[in-house]
Amino acid sequence: MKKTIIVFSGDMDKVMAAFIIANGAAAMGDEVSMFFTFWGLNALRKAKKVKVRKNFIEKLFGWMMPRGAEKLPLSKMNFAGMGKQMMKMIMKKKNVNSLPELIEMARDMGVKILACSMSMDVMGIKKEELIDGVEIAGVATYLGEADEANVNLFI
Amino acid sequence: MKKTIIVFSGDMDKVMAAFIIANGAAAMGDEVSMFFTFWGLNALRKAKKVKVRKNFIEKLFGWMMPRGAEKLPLSKMNFAGMGKQMMKMIMKKKNVNSLPELIEMARDMGVKILACSMSMDVMGIKKEELIDGVEIAGVATYLGEADEANVNLFI
Amino acid sequence: MKKTIIVFSGDMDKVMAAFIIANGAAAMGDEVSMFFTFWGLNALRKAKKVKVRKNFIEKLFGWMMPRGAEKLPLSKMNFAGMGKQMMKMIMKKKNVNSLPELIEMARDMGVKILACSMSMDVMGIKKEELIDGVEIAGVATYLGEADEANVNLFI
Repeated sequence: MKKTIIVFSGDMDKVMAAFIIANGAAAMGDEVSMFFTFWGLNALRKAKKVKVRKNFIEKLFGWMMPRGAEKLPLSKMNFAGMGKQMMKMIMKKKNVNSLPELIEMARDMGVKILACSMSMDVMGIKKEELIDGVEIAGVATYLGEADEANVNLFI
Repeated sequence: MKKTIIVFSGDMDKVMAAFIIANGAAAMGDEVSMFFTFWGLNALRKAKKVKVRKNFIEKLFGWMMPRGAEKLPLSKMNFAGMGKQMMKMIMKKKNVNSLPELIEMARDMGVKILACSMSMDVMGIKKEELIDGVEIAGVATYLGEADEANVNLFI
Repeated sequence: MKKTIIVFSGDMDKVMAAFIIANGAAAMGDEVSMFFTFWGLNALRKAKKVKVRKNFIEKLFGWMMPRGAEKLPLSKMNFAGMGKQMMKMIMKKKNVNSLPELIEMARDMGVKILACSMSMDVMGIKKEELIDGVEIAGVATYLGEADEANVNLFI
């Protein structure tokens, strides 16, 4: 049965947990919808700067927030990125998929990736700045999907 | 169908997310129950100091924790309140409802707002200090409501 | 009906919330499964150092992360442990069960306590380092249990 996950957090460890659950469910044949909102949107940003029109505040926000999955910090023991690097190193050694790989797998398995329109507006993030395959949606879409699902998580 | 949301977090952005989901569901005709516990209780405190009897530790807690929805910090990029102010400014400009407005709307639409009795006791928060329309409840009430709901989130 | 809780957080207050919900549900006759992953694993570590073979990085991780339920920090107002101590003092005075007591109760009531195998591998935590009664499981086990449950939380 369908699963939905709201990804509010922009921390690497939490976003990874979201994708591990989503991919696991998709592998077992479930439909999965992930809703990225607030800081979670940062996980969907392209690594490269995209030319779009932004006002001053939007530029500032865009510059201060991590651009893409590779840049997300750890929620704990980040130590200005050193903890994060260590974690990534360990994961590589242990053959755990990296976050960009998990996102790739999710898309390949047909996990629906939705970005919250209101958060995009507030943070000044434009559709062109997000990775391919992301759909824009609002809270009504989320609630419609959640009504059809038997597992709904907020991460 | 019914929705329940546990609001554990006392961060402005997370509490806003909770109310946006709750209000969206209520607008679509669902019953919604929100359970405020631990730091989440701060979102329900009246902005004005209320005269109640407290012991020293309870006073200290009450003084250190944000008093009401206007005072909640951001979970990220708060920068001693500057990030929060910037976020509020942007939201106003983009015509996004502020947290106090979202709370008002929730009450108008009949969203049930419950405060966790055990957390109130631990943090020394008295009923008179909470905004109007809040009911006090325990974990058994939560579980009873969650059993009737098809979406249950922990924020 | 069954409940599942993913305990991702390693913060004392959040882990307590997880056990209060779990124990409440178990007391009302529900089956409950708790999945400890990432930082949440720290709540299950034995307080005493256990002799196991670890490489340098695993030792470092083990040494930097809190060893067991007594050592977990608060998610807010921890103040290098002082806030945590104050919170524990208040809870004792108010006759609220401590986290180790809540864990004990959960095990007595038959709450299933599962530790995420992938997180254990990444963090270098060995089964012998975890408290008794913990089972090792993967995401497929979680999803199987969640499919049978009517309340699924991520904490």
